[in-house]
Amino acid sequence: MRSLQMNFNIKNYINFWAKKVDSWLDSYLISTDPHINGLTDSMRYSVFAGGKRLRPALIYSSFGVFDGYFDKVTPFAAAVELLHTYSLIHDDLPAMDDDDLRRGKPTNHVVFGEGVAILAGDALLTKSFEIMTSRELNPDVEPEIMLEAANKFAIATGDRGMVGGQFADLKAEGGNFDENTVAFIHMNKTSALIAYCLELGAILGYADEKGKKDMLLFGKNIGLAFQIVDDILDLTSTSEELGKNAKSDLKKDKATYPAIFGIEKSKRIADDLINTAFSILDNYGEAALPLKELAKFVIQRSN
Amino acid sequence: MRSLQMNFNIKNYINFWAKKVDSWLDSYLISTDPHINGLTDSMRYSVFAGGKRLRPALIYSSFGVFDGYFDKVTPFAAAVELLHTYSLIHDDLPAMDDDDLRRGKPTNHVVFGEGVAILAGDALLTKSFEIMTSRELNPDVEPEIMLEAANKFAIATGDRGMVGGQFADLKAEGGNFDENTVAFIHMNKTSALIAYCLELGAILGYADEKGKKDMLLFGKNIGLAFQIVDDILDLTSTSEELGKNAKSDLKKDKATYPAIFGIEKSKRIADDLINTAFSILDNYGEAALPLKELAKFVIQRSN
Repeated sequence: MRSLQMNFNIKNYINFWAKKVDSWLDSYLISTDPHINGLTDSMRYSVFAGGKRLRPALIYSSFGVFDGYFDKVTPFAAAVELLHTYSLIHDDLPAMDDDDLRRGKPTNHVVFGEGVAILAGDALLTKSFEIMTSRELNPDVEPEIMLEAANKFAIATGDRGMVGGQFADLKAEGGNFDENTVAFIHMNKTSALIAYCLELGAILGYADEKGKKDMLLFGKNIGLAFQIVDDILDLTSTSEELGKNAKSDLKKDKATYPAIFGIEKSKRIADDLINTAFSILDNYGEAALPLKELAKFVIQRSN
Repeated sequence: MRSLQMNFNIKNYINFWAKKVDSWLDSYLISTDPHINGLTDSMRYSVFAGGKRLRPALIYSSFGVFDGYFDKVTPFAAAVELLHTYSLIHDDLPAMDDDDLRRGKPTNHVVFGEGVAILAGDALLTKSFEIMTSRELNPDVEPEIMLEAANKFAIATGDRGMVGGQFADLKAEGGNFDENTVAFIHMNKTSALIAYCLELGAILGYADEKGKKDMLLFGKNIGLAFQIVDDILDLTSTSEELGKNAKSDLKKDKATYPAIFGIEKSKRIADDLINTAFSILDNYGEAALPLKELAKFVIQRSN
C-alpha cells in the first residue's frame, strides 16, 4: 500500500475524471433552438470556467470503494457539477455575495447581465435533475437507485441543505452570528453537497447501509474542513492567488471559523476533521486510497 | 352527459382540488431548523399568495380521464405548484420583469429582499424535485413512473422549456421580436408547463402512448390559449381587476400575440386553439368533461 501511495498523483487522478465529466458535459450542453443560444452560452460560460471538478472526483473515488464500473457514474457526476455551478452563479449575484470575479474571470452576471445569470442558474439546476432522472442517459442504473440518488440530491441542495446554508449565510452578514450559526452555515452551505457526493458514490456502488453512512460521515467531515480551509485562504491569500477577490469575507463581516476562532485554531479544527474522516476509512483498505489523497489535497491546496 | 354538464360547477371543482393541494403543502412546507425560518416564511408567502391552483386542477382532471385513485396525484400536483411559484418569484425580480405586485400583494422580493427571493425560488424549485423523487411520499407510484414524471417535468421546465421561454422573453423586450419569436416564447414560457400537467395526469393514470400524446397536445393548445388570453387581459383590464400592474407588457414592449395581431385576431386565435383542444377530447367521453370545463374557464376568466 505504501508504494502505491507514493506513486499516486492526486492531480492526475482529479484531471482524469475531470476530462470524462467535461467531455460528457461538452456534448450534452448544447442549444436545441436558436432562441436559446444566448442562454446556453451563459450556462456553458460558467460550467467551463475552470472549475477543478473536485466533486466529481469525490463521487468517482467513493464509488471506487465499492464498485469498478465507472462509466455509469459520469452522468451523475456531471449533474452534480451543474448544480454546483448554478449555486456559484446565484451566489455571485449583486443581491447575494456581489462578486465580480471567480477563478480569475468575470462572474456570469457581469458578462451576461443579472436576468440571464438568474435564468442560467435556474436552467442548470433543472438540468441536473433532468440528467439524474433520465433512464435514457442512465441505462445501467436501476430506477430505485436513480430515485434514491435524485431524492437525496434534492434534500442535500434545497432548503434543508445548501440553499438553507446560503440563506443563513446571507442573514449572518454584518457580524450577526455566533458559533452555532457558523456551524449551521458551513454544514449546509458547502458540506451538505460534498457529503452527498460521497454518499452518491456509495449509492451507485450498491453499498449497504453502513457503507452509505460511512461515506456520508466521511463527506461531512471533509466538507466542513474544505470550507474552513476556504475561509482561511480568503484571509491569507492575494486576489491573484485565489482567482477571486481576497478578504471579501472580512469586508462583509461574514460568518466564518477564522472570524470566531482565529486562523491557527481554525487550522487545527480542520486537521482534526480530516483525521476523523481518515479513521472512518480504516476498514476499507486500499480501495479507499484515492479518497484519502483527495482529502489531503483538499486541506493542503494553496489554490 | 348534457345534464351532468349543466350541474358541473367549475369553480367548485377547482377549489375542491386546490384544498387538497393546499392542505398537503401546508403540512409539508415547514421549517426544519430555526436558522431557515425566514427562508420558509418567504417560500410560504408566495406559495400561499392566492394562486388559483389551475395547474393542479389540470393534472387531476387529466388523471381522471384514465384512473380514479386521486390521492396519489396530490404530491405531484403540489410539486408542480411549487415549481410554478418559483417561476413567478424569479420572473418578478428587478433583473427580470421587475413587478412589485402580484395577485394584489407585494411580490416576494419587495417583502423579503432580492437575495432571499432568489433563494426562496431556488429552494422551491429544488423541493419540487425532492417531492417527485420521494418514494416515501409516493408509496403507490412505481419507480419507473416516478422517473418518467420527474424527467419530463425537468425537460418541460428547463432550458428546453419554461426557462428557455423566459430567456427568449427577456431578450425580446424592447420590441425586438417577430411572429416566430412570440410563438417560441409562448409555447415554452407558459404552454410547456401546462402541457406537462396534462401529460403528467396521463402518466400517473397509466395511459398508453396515444393517451399521453393526446393529453400533451390538448395541453399545448390550451396552454397557448391561456397565455394569449393573459396577454389580452393585460391590455384590457385595470390593475385592480388583475391583481397586478396592468399594461406592463405594453410598457416594456413585450413579445405578445396582441402586439403582433391586435386584440380581436388574438381572441380568434385563442378560440381556434380551444376548439382544436376540444376535438382531441372527443374520444374520451364523459370522463373528459372536467377538462373541457377547465379549458372553457381558462379562456373565459375575467381574472
